[in-house]
Amino acid sequence: MRGFFIVLEGIDGVGKTTQAKILARKLRQQGREVVEVREPGGTQLGEAIRELLAREEELAPWAETCLFLASRAQLVEEVIKPALAQGKIVVGDRFSLSTLAYQGGARGLGVDRLAQLNSWVTGGLEPDLTLVIDLKVEEALARGKGDLREEIRQKLEIVRERYLSLAKERAGKVLVVSGQGSVEEVSGRIWTLVEEALARWPSG
Amino acid sequence: MRGFFIVLEGIDGVGKTTQAKILARKLRQQGREVVEVREPGGTQLGEAIRELLAREEELAPWAETCLFLASRAQLVEEVIKPALAQGKIVVGDRFSLSTLAYQGGARGLGVDRLAQLNSWVTGGLEPDLTLVIDLKVEEALARGKGDLREEIRQKLEIVRERYLSLAKERAGKVLVVSGQGSVEEVSGRIWTLVEEALARWPSG
Repeated sequence: MRGFFIVLEGIDGVGKTTQAKILARKLRQQGREVVEVREPGGTQLGEAIRELLAREEELAPWAETCLFLASRAQLVEEVIKPALAQGKIVVGDRFSLSTLAYQGGARGLGVDRLAQLNSWVTGGLEPDLTLVIDLKVEEALARGKGDLREEIRQKLEIVRERYLSLAKERAGKVLVVSGQGSVEEVSGRIWTLVEEALARWPSG
Repeated sequence: MRGFFIVLEGIDGVGKTTQAKILARKLRQQGREVVEVREPGGTQLGEAIRELLAREEELAPWAETCLFLASRAQLVEEVIKPALAQGKIVVGDRFSLSTLAYQGGARGLGVDRLAQLNSWVTGGLEPDLTLVIDLKVEEALARGKGDLREEIRQKLEIVRERYLSLAKERAGKVLVVSGQGSVEEVSGRIWTLVEEALARWPSG
């Protein structure tokens, strides 16, 4: 039996972390075993990398990218693969799509290269379902902790567009969920899509 | 005018760090401007990564690799490229070849992938001259700080063989220097090769 790997994605401020917690709670209420992970982080190495990324200000684009990938490689080996092998459901707050949208979009490193690299460092592991929570940049910024500089706004516009086009290219495995409305409304939308996906899952 | 980038490579214990210092001193005595770098390290990020690598014990092979690459990407952008643009000589204690020999050899990640990745993160920057200091594994271990476990010895045998075959494939740009004899004997051999290379260097 192989578990199921669900990832929540989207630009900063759309509510990924809140929604990941709610989703994990609902799955547990159904009696399922759930492991929650976040990126960067989720392992001792990953959390150290998270601190590094928060502290360092002038990172070269590839240095930043490689730090995210190091965190991901360790998370996959140490946490995600073992959990899936035990038939658990893994709920992730960001994964490979973040690299394609942020470093591929805002940093301009090229989506093909980054997709190749993701596949190397994860040993080809892909989420069974990725949900992109989508919200207009102004609304996400208003909700989030809010660095409201114009430069940040423009960067997030590029990342949002990239998320939407990545979802279109990966239709079926990557779905877009509207982030508008209350936390409950959004979590209701997410739950509907997760239940549908789990119903089609052989061991679900 | 573009500077000149020299890298010393080889398994642990062959004397790279000592020889890099001597080489830099000799070049300065000739009135040249020299920048010394080491990997991992050489930038604030790189030194933090060096500490992480020393501290973490059970790193996934790709996590380890991506940490080295993050350090390299930052070093290239922040230090090496600006120094070369100013016509300086950069003396490096390890660079891309270490990844191919250690992670490609002992960790088995595949030299072609790693060479591709190196080229991405460095923007295609390659050393003008790489010198592999070669010594039998027993001699290097006897000289070094010496983790003498059999497992380490076997790993270093693989890495040494990999260095020698990489040098053969890159003849001209990568040369092998015997590490046998005294520090002065080895530095004399290195100096001969560096002088020859600099004599052919247009701005030398």
